[in-house]
Amino acid sequence: MSNDYYKTLPKKRMGAGALIFNNKNELLTLKPSYKDYWSIPGGVIEENESPKAGCVREVKEEIGLDVSLQFLCVDWTSSKEGKGDSLQFIFYGGVLPPEQENAIKLETEEISDYKFLAVDQALLLLSEKLKRRVPKCLEALKKNTALYLEDEN
Amino acid sequence: MSNDYYKTLPKKRMGAGALIFNNKNELLTLKPSYKDYWSIPGGVIEENESPKAGCVREVKEEIGLDVSLQFLCVDWTSSKEGKGDSLQFIFYGGVLPPEQENAIKLETEEISDYKFLAVDQALLLLSEKLKRRVPKCLEALKKNTALYLEDEN
Repeated sequence: MSNDYYKTLPKKRMGAGALIFNNKNELLTLKPSYKDYWSIPGGVIEENESPKAGCVREVKEEIGLDVSLQFLCVDWTSSKEGKGDSLQFIFYGGVLPPEQENAIKLETEEISDYKFLAVDQALLLLSEKLKRRVPKCLEALKKNTALYLEDEN
Repeated sequence: MSNDYYKTLPKKRMGAGALIFNNKNELLTLKPSYKDYWSIPGGVIEENESPKAGCVREVKEEIGLDVSLQFLCVDWTSSKEGKGDSLQFIFYGGVLPPEQENAIKLETEEISDYKFLAVDQALLLLSEKLKRRVPKCLEALKKNTALYLEDEN
């Protein structure tokens, strides 16, 4: 197949987020400056960048930490309001020891604040999609497995 | 965010394939007319189509059967020879009872032949990528888990 053929194929945008905890089992949540709700570290995957590498990069850019990630889920989201369909990956970023927790620095203007919150409290602040996706990911983490989801169902 | 913003985001093409067995634990392999090696049922995921739905559609188009699928792996492949990077999904399509095995019909000119083969024999015929990806998927199936891979590593 010629490269021109590959260029004609349908493509999807994708993003990735990380579930990172402190040693009190609290989840790291971030407040994006330009959104009404809270989120988790992560963002858009770049061209010729893997979902995991993109998530590592975004975490570093947002909170200044190097994390290693474990795959928890890939969630296909159908096109809504003309945005096109997408894939969202969630990775487990582990438990930060206190010295790392204290080393968090918000390094981008895109994030205005961060909090570690008990999961049930964190869920109240997250987007509707993450409210549905995160509990399923935590369940997968407990079972040491990984999930394929569609529209968070 | 405006829809124009979403249109500017990087995107990746993606494909999906199914591991389908007969009741002798043999793997269904297909011979694409336009390739030198054998493959598994599956193909390119369309716009606003989920990886799983795309795989179900391709299996139906290629062998005339309706299958239900279980997620086994998502494998990111870096851009090679200007083709752009991509995601490849593998699903488990279960074990066909003899009446379904006998009902297979090659319904597209893109597939010239099919065989059920013991896995070690099938692997000899598959592409280099599938040679590496399929054994990992079968291991994940055994452990009832799912995998994230990068460049089949």
